[in-house]
Amino acid sequence: MLERIRIVLIGTSHPGNIGGVARAMHNMGLADLALVAPRCEVITQDSISRASGADHLLHQASVHASLEEAVADCTLAVGASARSRTLPWPMLSPRELADRLPAECQAAESRVALVFGREDSGLTNAELQRCHAHVHIPTNADFSSLNLAAAVQVLAYECRMAWLSQSDGQADAPPTVPNDDDDLATHAELERYFEHLERTLIGIDFHDPDQPRQLMARLRRLYLRARPERMEMNILRGILSATEKAANTKPPKP
Amino acid sequence: MLERIRIVLIGTSHPGNIGGVARAMHNMGLADLALVAPRCEVITQDSISRASGADHLLHQASVHASLEEAVADCTLAVGASARSRTLPWPMLSPRELADRLPAECQAAESRVALVFGREDSGLTNAELQRCHAHVHIPTNADFSSLNLAAAVQVLAYECRMAWLSQSDGQADAPPTVPNDDDDLATHAELERYFEHLERTLIGIDFHDPDQPRQLMARLRRLYLRARPERMEMNILRGILSATEKAANTKPPKP
Repeated sequence: MLERIRIVLIGTSHPGNIGGVARAMHNMGLADLALVAPRCEVITQDSISRASGADHLLHQASVHASLEEAVADCTLAVGASARSRTLPWPMLSPRELADRLPAECQAAESRVALVFGREDSGLTNAELQRCHAHVHIPTNADFSSLNLAAAVQVLAYECRMAWLSQSDGQADAPPTVPNDDDDLATHAELERYFEHLERTLIGIDFHDPDQPRQLMARLRRLYLRARPERMEMNILRGILSATEKAANTKPPKP
Repeated sequence: MLERIRIVLIGTSHPGNIGGVARAMHNMGLADLALVAPRCEVITQDSISRASGADHLLHQASVHASLEEAVADCTLAVGASARSRTLPWPMLSPRELADRLPAECQAAESRVALVFGREDSGLTNAELQRCHAHVHIPTNADFSSLNLAAAVQVLAYECRMAWLSQSDGQADAPPTVPNDDDDLATHAELERYFEHLERTLIGIDFHDPDQPRQLMARLRRLYLRARPERMEMNILRGILSATEKAANTKPPKP
């Protein structure tokens, strides 16, 4: 289970924090670290010192230009969020997330991404809206900003606790995955659908990108909540193609 | 409850770690920090930087010559231990400790001390034997030494979770309702949507009622799983109307 959990850090600016994250991960048995557009060097004296023996995780970390690229193969992406945003999203506590992990990690191709934002500003709304759910670590309302490595430590600890409770004889508990008769769509497949959906909605004059009024955010939330299967994604994309054809809105190939 | 929990650090040698502990404590709502024979300056650029706004905990920390002095008024002392020692001692997991805290903190004069040892060598056997119980944070057997601030973070998080579960309905409890910004669609509204959807899919030549191939059943399952809100239903129906208009498929009114 633990090998299917990826820690994704976006726009980290302090090498020491990346090192601290690597140490927290290795302590809890996680190994898959992905860095999106880091705003600092990854391998420095500071990061190696804070990794304190876990610096192989820094060397083997993958580096990506975008969140989409980092989570393209993931079947569940959960964004760490300090507070609920304007548009409410499915919100989990770390323990609720942990309770879901064994089932989420059951399929051989399942990959779970836990996504953490910048030290100064967290995740953007656009990034949060690419996640199926958000996880909020309960904190003192007057002092809610956790250190990045500390936030990873808490979630990695809950991952390990979930893994331990599973290997304590609960491994044969009934699976609670919502759709088990087909593969879940990956993040990349979902993103292609959302792009296609937006293009089609513009084409039929339902959506004006200059006056978005949270339309795409609301549709993202709806479809991400449903956890679409690959076959369902194919149906929905087929509907979009038929819509474009019927409305004759298909743009010329670039 | 949280005000009755003291974090005791023995022989800490890095000011940055003391700062990191202060931040983790303040994040989780703990404020009582006791330092026993620190092997470094407490107030330094590094500790204040790592405290990141929680440096008042450093200034108000008590400093003691011995563990006995630091926990003299405590009704329960629990020592953090990386492994069980030669002499078996009552051993708790962080969660078992958390389960005990509400009862332990009930009496007005109760004080609980969570005791952490040196970065390099932990607690001595003599110190561990001054504790009522030991708490072991589960870790990767190959890499078990947690950073001091990370260890405090995990236990402080469990303290906060215990406090939140005790004070159910707390203002700052994490919200867990998936969609609370609008009413769920009624059954009748969903049925009107499915009728409209089927009509539209026939209109754009995607769906042939004579060869249904479970298309509508699959779409029903997808949308019902998402538990759409009324507002989302309105958006989806708006998309269908725009599709009909763009494709010019709207049937004449009967």
